[in-house]
Amino acid sequence: MKRSAVLRSVIFTGTLFFCWVVFFGSQSFSQHEKLRVNANRIKQRIMELAEFGNNQQGGVSRVAFSEANIQGRNYIVSLMKEAGLKIQIDEAGNIIGQRKGKEPKLPPILFGSHIDSVPNGGKYDGALGVIGAIECVQVLDENGIVTRHPLEVVVFTDEEGGLVGSRAMIGELTPEALEVVSHSGKKVRDGISAVGGNPDEISLVMRHKGEIKAFIEIHIEQGSVLETKNIDIGIVEGIVGINWWDVLIEGFSNHAGTTPMDMRHDALLSAAHLIIAVNRVATGVPGRQVGTVGRIQCEPGAPNVIPGRVVMSLELRDLSAKKINTLYEKIQKEAKAIAEKTKTKISFTPIDATAVPAPTDPQISKFIAEAAQELGLTSILMPSGAGHDAQNIARIAPTGMIFVPSVGGISHSPKEYTRPEDMANGANVLLFTILKIDLQKGSKQIFF
Amino acid sequence: MKRSAVLRSVIFTGTLFFCWVVFFGSQSFSQHEKLRVNANRIKQRIMELAEFGNNQQGGVSRVAFSEANIQGRNYIVSLMKEAGLKIQIDEAGNIIGQRKGKEPKLPPILFGSHIDSVPNGGKYDGALGVIGAIECVQVLDENGIVTRHPLEVVVFTDEEGGLVGSRAMIGELTPEALEVVSHSGKKVRDGISAVGGNPDEISLVMRHKGEIKAFIEIHIEQGSVLETKNIDIGIVEGIVGINWWDVLIEGFSNHAGTTPMDMRHDALLSAAHLIIAVNRVATGVPGRQVGTVGRIQCEPGAPNVIPGRVVMSLELRDLSAKKINTLYEKIQKEAKAIAEKTKTKISFTPIDATAVPAPTDPQISKFIAEAAQELGLTSILMPSGAGHDAQNIARIAPTGMIFVPSVGGISHSPKEYTRPEDMANGANVLLFTILKIDLQKGSKQIFF
Repeated sequence: MKRSAVLRSVIFTGTLFFCWVVFFGSQSFSQHEKLRVNANRIKQRIMELAEFGNNQQGGVSRVAFSEANIQGRNYIVSLMKEAGLKIQIDEAGNIIGQRKGKEPKLPPILFGSHIDSVPNGGKYDGALGVIGAIECVQVLDENGIVTRHPLEVVVFTDEEGGLVGSRAMIGELTPEALEVVSHSGKKVRDGISAVGGNPDEISLVMRHKGEIKAFIEIHIEQGSVLETKNIDIGIVEGIVGINWWDVLIEGFSNHAGTTPMDMRHDALLSAAHLIIAVNRVATGVPGRQVGTVGRIQCEPGAPNVIPGRVVMSLELRDLSAKKINTLYEKIQKEAKAIAEKTKTKISFTPIDATAVPAPTDPQISKFIAEAAQELGLTSILMPSGAGHDAQNIARIAPTGMIFVPSVGGISHSPKEYTRPEDMANGANVLLFTILKIDLQKGSKQIFF
Repeated sequence: MKRSAVLRSVIFTGTLFFCWVVFFGSQSFSQHEKLRVNANRIKQRIMELAEFGNNQQGGVSRVAFSEANIQGRNYIVSLMKEAGLKIQIDEAGNIIGQRKGKEPKLPPILFGSHIDSVPNGGKYDGALGVIGAIECVQVLDENGIVTRHPLEVVVFTDEEGGLVGSRAMIGELTPEALEVVSHSGKKVRDGISAVGGNPDEISLVMRHKGEIKAFIEIHIEQGSVLETKNIDIGIVEGIVGINWWDVLIEGFSNHAGTTPMDMRHDALLSAAHLIIAVNRVATGVPGRQVGTVGRIQCEPGAPNVIPGRVVMSLELRDLSAKKINTLYEKIQKEAKAIAEKTKTKISFTPIDATAVPAPTDPQISKFIAEAAQELGLTSILMPSGAGHDAQNIARIAPTGMIFVPSVGGISHSPKEYTRPEDMANGANVLLFTILKIDLQKGSKQIFF
């Protein structure tokens, strides 16, 4: 053939190939629409994991770094291996199960949750996020699907003790936090060593912006909004900010028999007015903010003595830090009037345990909404009132959260329950969302 | 002389003698108007007694049956002997200092108080009533005055631990009460033995109606009514009845972050409304009734958990049992509405520690008022909001109580203080009152 003929032939073949790629080879999400997780396998694994740390109350005591937690981690590692994941324990003790993507240079899509529990907790909190994540990978494996991006299933260390693993991943696990004594009785430092981490090299765990394509976590709602409204899927708009204060109310302790009503400086009466004011302020404006007084101590605390001193907690949560501040200002104003009326003194001390609001990524939320719709599931946007590892990762990567209903809204209790079909719904939405992110517009996968 | 002359002579002499008795020999109270107690001696003895059980806080820890209490009792016995009293320790361990009267068959006039303290209490509570009583006898002794009625100065056993000695005297110290562990660490039974009583023969202590002419107790007010109103003497109308309840408020404990405001069953919010209702009811009708919530426990008691259960105390005091009941009914009604509004359940359990109102004797109160007036002191009628041995003795004998100002209204505290002049005022009023009772109209003393 002439050189020009060869060139034409090459151009023709190239054009044909291009057309094939455009019309057939480009993998669109529609090819995955029939994929479904195995609901029975999820249910069975949830029950198997619940064996580690099961207790007489029918719940789970699998606090981070405990023997039950270590055994549970080993069980999870075995499931990850079955799903074809390569296991790595990072310096913070996070378990990372890695799966290669078609394009190794792309940042990984991260998904997972935690398997440590609160003392006498339930079977689903955290566990669903991990077992659902492994299920997604196993379904991809069984269907021979390789994503463009690497995938990483993560089991974060000691979520219930202060989001330890995810704090390490964003570089914010302080030396002080390592010295805290965890529920297991071990210092966090020693616990991390016990699960295969290296607390002296914790900074190696840190990931920077751009290093994670996305993070997605399924979790039980831990509230009753979805159940009450009869909705399948909660699309988390963000994890609320939490501000805590200690409120000190100083009156004057005196004999309840000899002190007439009009001569009292009753700190508990003042506290009662303030508790009602907190409720009034939190319910007095539109929105989903919450305000709670959960702890109260009254001194001297005898039936025949007028309380002289009350210490109580104040907690405000909302997706907007500005709104929390506005609410707090209103409460302070009310407190001033109450102090005057009851002849007491009220002061507020902010507590360090504050969390800033962590909005999720709108594009990922959109994918979650599409996924739910394609699966025939109802969904609503909602805040996460509880803290999650996602609130940390949201600071370095686009993050999404998928909620499924908690029966009775109960969590952190042996009575915690989520129906198998709801767990499967959540895992299916996760699977679809991962694939949508992987195939995100403008970066379609070339499929050979 | 003729028999008739002898008879005339006898009649004449008898008539003369009768006239002498009527015009000179009948002792009227006016003869005693110049008598005064020794203010310095009272002050000094109060300070000397305070040495027994004195503590670093400047207060007194002289709980019943403690070593300090026993030493204090010995000191008091020495003072009683100095005042010419004959000492008897009854089976309940009460110290009785007896002084004969002109008419030994008349029932004794009883006066006194207690010298046991609360842990870390003050120098005046109880002590003034005992030292003031001894002072009155000593003044009579120094002035050669013998009353018609026998006098008895009483130091009641373990007042602060439940009016033990006076309960024994009215026959209501139960076998169970003997088994209670007192503040000293000793069982009441063993404590009584340790101070010279005989717990196995406790019923011998009992006195019946008519066996005591009158009982009078001076006491510090333990409130600030006298000080605030700038009045010298409180004439106690009665010792208030006290009703206690445990109030149980059942809501539903849940996650403070995930449970919207309108889905909560917040037991502490309900409790707050009830605390305010108690105050509203107690202040909503005329009178000197008091209503107190002094103790509150909230479960689970974490800042991030909606309280599911609150147990709190409710105490109501008034001179009228009927009024207490009316107030309680109002509070119950309010509780019902609060329970409905807050979606909680509120229930009340009466506690056995209830005291019935104990009115004092109007005639004795009148004598106290006259005594105060004659001494140039201001006085007011007032209830005793605190419990006293007088409330027991009032059930078997005409009883009176004399209050003197407590600086700052403080009691049961190292800061408890009553000015020497106020202590002397109280003791002078006691002295006058004893003499007025002794010389009560219709039973004038024959004075040879």
